[in-house]
Amino acid sequence: MAKYAIGVDFGTLSGRALVVDVATGAELGSAVLEYRFGVMDEKLPAGKKLGMDWALQHPMDYIDVLKETIPEALRQSGVSADDVIGLGIDFTACTMLPVKADGTPLCFMPEWADNPHAYIKLWKHHAAQDQANRVNALAEKRGEKWLPRYGGKVSSEWALPKILQVLEEAPDVYDAADYFIEAGDWVVWQLTGRQSRNACMAGYKALFHKRDGYPSKAFLRELNPRLENLVEDKLGCAISPLGVKAGETTGDATLIGLKPGIAVAVANVDAHVTAPAAKAAPGAMLAIMGTSTCHIIAGSEEKTVPGMCGVVEDGVYPGYFGFEAGQSCVGDHFAWFVENCMPIEYAEEARTRSVSPHVLLTEKAERLKPGESGLVALDWWNGNRSVLVDVDLTGLMIGMTLATKPEEIYRALIEATAYGTRVIVENFRESGVAVDSFIASGGIALKNPMMMQIYADVLRMPIRVAGSAQGPALGSAIFGAVAAGSANGGYDSVFDASAKMGKLLDKTYDPNPESADTYDKLYAEYKTLHDWFGRGGNDVMKRLKKIKKESAE
Amino acid sequence: MAKYAIGVDFGTLSGRALVVDVATGAELGSAVLEYRFGVMDEKLPAGKKLGMDWALQHPMDYIDVLKETIPEALRQSGVSADDVIGLGIDFTACTMLPVKADGTPLCFMPEWADNPHAYIKLWKHHAAQDQANRVNALAEKRGEKWLPRYGGKVSSEWALPKILQVLEEAPDVYDAADYFIEAGDWVVWQLTGRQSRNACMAGYKALFHKRDGYPSKAFLRELNPRLENLVEDKLGCAISPLGVKAGETTGDATLIGLKPGIAVAVANVDAHVTAPAAKAAPGAMLAIMGTSTCHIIAGSEEKTVPGMCGVVEDGVYPGYFGFEAGQSCVGDHFAWFVENCMPIEYAEEARTRSVSPHVLLTEKAERLKPGESGLVALDWWNGNRSVLVDVDLTGLMIGMTLATKPEEIYRALIEATAYGTRVIVENFRESGVAVDSFIASGGIALKNPMMMQIYADVLRMPIRVAGSAQGPALGSAIFGAVAAGSANGGYDSVFDASAKMGKLLDKTYDPNPESADTYDKLYAEYKTLHDWFGRGGNDVMKRLKKIKKESAE
Repeated sequence: MAKYAIGVDFGTLSGRALVVDVATGAELGSAVLEYRFGVMDEKLPAGKKLGMDWALQHPMDYIDVLKETIPEALRQSGVSADDVIGLGIDFTACTMLPVKADGTPLCFMPEWADNPHAYIKLWKHHAAQDQANRVNALAEKRGEKWLPRYGGKVSSEWALPKILQVLEEAPDVYDAADYFIEAGDWVVWQLTGRQSRNACMAGYKALFHKRDGYPSKAFLRELNPRLENLVEDKLGCAISPLGVKAGETTGDATLIGLKPGIAVAVANVDAHVTAPAAKAAPGAMLAIMGTSTCHIIAGSEEKTVPGMCGVVEDGVYPGYFGFEAGQSCVGDHFAWFVENCMPIEYAEEARTRSVSPHVLLTEKAERLKPGESGLVALDWWNGNRSVLVDVDLTGLMIGMTLATKPEEIYRALIEATAYGTRVIVENFRESGVAVDSFIASGGIALKNPMMMQIYADVLRMPIRVAGSAQGPALGSAIFGAVAAGSANGGYDSVFDASAKMGKLLDKTYDPNPESADTYDKLYAEYKTLHDWFGRGGNDVMKRLKKIKKESAE
Repeated sequence: MAKYAIGVDFGTLSGRALVVDVATGAELGSAVLEYRFGVMDEKLPAGKKLGMDWALQHPMDYIDVLKETIPEALRQSGVSADDVIGLGIDFTACTMLPVKADGTPLCFMPEWADNPHAYIKLWKHHAAQDQANRVNALAEKRGEKWLPRYGGKVSSEWALPKILQVLEEAPDVYDAADYFIEAGDWVVWQLTGRQSRNACMAGYKALFHKRDGYPSKAFLRELNPRLENLVEDKLGCAISPLGVKAGETTGDATLIGLKPGIAVAVANVDAHVTAPAAKAAPGAMLAIMGTSTCHIIAGSEEKTVPGMCGVVEDGVYPGYFGFEAGQSCVGDHFAWFVENCMPIEYAEEARTRSVSPHVLLTEKAERLKPGESGLVALDWWNGNRSVLVDVDLTGLMIGMTLATKPEEIYRALIEATAYGTRVIVENFRESGVAVDSFIASGGIALKNPMMMQIYADVLRMPIRVAGSAQGPALGSAIFGAVAAGSANGGYDSVFDASAKMGKLLDKTYDPNPESADTYDKLYAEYKTLHDWFGRGGNDVMKRLKKIKKESAE
């Protein structure tokens, strides 16, 4: 009798359930629900105005996803609930909420419903920048040993700045919260009836280290005396490595079309969960490409890699150190170009032929040889995440002449993101983390062969592409099958599950030696500019930002 | 009885006659003729194919301009030929032809009509680059003292490379030519019946120096033994300062609607002739702005200014040293942007409102404050003429973010040309040439107040704008009135004539102190980038051009 696992992927705007055959990885049914409350960045449901840079969510949206998408995905697949053995979920992070001891979100309680701090702070809530700056300044001053694990900088998107913002701006909410918890862990709690916390979110977003634990009481006290006991008071739960079972569905499972007693995996981050879905074993770098790119690679030793986003034991695969790096602007680059720089003739040609602007530009850019445009860009339109970790860097393009065409600029932007990836790969290698192979996933990877070939040529590595268009949901289903275990028809190891259920396209993009030679020369130019503008040779980008700010006053 | 002067301006594609009141400068009538042969860059009239980078003209076009535009301009003005006292002409340069001793162009003679070298080599004939390279290499090797007067580089557009090309590729044409002469001087010869050569063309285009003469026999011999006697054999005529009378119209003047005996000024270059039309006295920098910008300024001492295009005694005003500098890409920048980078919404808005793309972009760019875009560009899309004298430099833009709008890029390009002008102004000052005031002329100057304000703010100088849309033709008419002299109702000095006949708009663009402070900061950034990329700090632009060339092979 075939067995099935379900993965549920909670994104920024919607949630998706996917029913997967445990033996083959076949994707048999899926359903999506757009969140009803969505991203609240202007006001609360009852009308209360929010400040600049706020971004909240409502937990009811997540419950609705479970209730509506799981039964619908099962219906589509024709699979019986009796044959579902495991469930996994993945989530954006750090997406965090204050709850009572029984898991009730504060925002569900009438007395807190009008307080913005009672809601879920979405990953892209950026109103805790001031708090993040103070966390960074103090960690630097004290020489906290955890700081280098995060490229030397804590993001305002992470847990500590967000919690500190609650404490400072709404001390009553802080006091009323028995826990602060990642939404991913909270959803698992709703499914299993008991709290768990996963190593991936704790490690990458809450500064948790398997051996050293969270930041020290001394650090927290110096940050704010009232934070001293934050860990035992409000984060109180052991951290589980990825791949373990958080619990089993309760009697309430019938509400979401499932039976009680089904294994539920600990939660995972939507990027990291993609690794087993793309068969990205330790040593393989996985690039999850969307508006930005997230790079995930697992290794057997802990290394300090300058400028990465984090290293977390058990954070990608149990028993391995998971490293994360990122590029802030990938798909966003090309979208910016199409919106702001694509001339009318091109737009009209795309309209007439009913192709997307990207298809048209790619067609034209494909005809160019490496180096033919004479252009090199620094891909910093949205700052630089790795390896410079500097949001104040901006874009640069060099080499334009009166003969420069739009497709040349478009291709130069694509090439720039490939050079940025090579910097990351070389940086890992120089720090002792082996990068043996390269796998790309995401819509761009599936849709743009030219881009994949450019990456292969620039990296001088064959590139494989993840085969599922639903990488995160497939990854969650894989972890669901592992939570069930072989005794129940699943797997005992993520690697076994990944080998059977993960997917790669048949095609391999092999480097073209001639193109790679040209790209070596261009990369050398990129690297010189990268270091000069990014490492203090000429801080013109920062000074221009300062002048810009002053002129807006 | 009112007296009139006529100016005839010979451009690249057409010639224009303008009838001007000598007392007031009032422009009373004008007529234009498009050349029939135009620019021959593919084949001769009889079909013979031309090589890459050739650009020829046919002298019959110039004769037709005289015959058709002068009578038509007179007719329009209602002025009688009896009251015309003087005639001046200006021309593109170096635009050069081989002629017989009586002035007959070789290309008028059936035996030469099929030889491309018998025709006029237009200023933008670029097929003598190899010859120019050898002229430069030899001049550097020998340490020729004239080389620094030309910013250290002889252009392939100038007389010596063009003549050397004739000698090497068509020695029979070289032998058959009694003279090589600028087309401007040749047209004056046709009008007056006798050869003259003007200091402006000889100085800026043929390396002539009032005291040192042309390059030495020794230099010419080493360049090519057969060139040794070039000067006495083929350039044989004294050089006249600007402002003198070349002669008087002959009996043939009736063919062009004029009477015999009218004073004809020596020829002038179309840029330089604009100075008196714009009242640009010594110490005033005149910027003639079009696709590129030419800067003219007269001073009382000869100075060596690094990176200028030339210094010529009597080359702008008699008795003064005329300095020339240039920016290779000004209007061309904005045209490139509109053609390649203006998005469809903007193009459609311009269409709907029936305004030009430039008007729309300027409207939007005008709302921005200095520094608000966070952008700085190096205006080198077409290389850098002054002060770096390097055609292999290319464009750069820095500071882009995902919020960067098209009008910000457009404004940054305009600002970049203003910074480039400031480099030129500061360079003159540092070399001891006073720049006391600044006058802009040309269509862009008349049409774009925002650009003029930016120039005023960046230069911290009030900017005046030339009042005539026909600056060169008006300047030629002024020189015509000077050739006539006060005894005939004209003037005895160019400065007197300029004061009465020259024109400036009433408006002065005064620097805004706050904007100027911001632009000082931005200019400092521009200058650092300018020197780093332009003076060897990082020769990436040249290396990218090399890679580009290799990839095209």
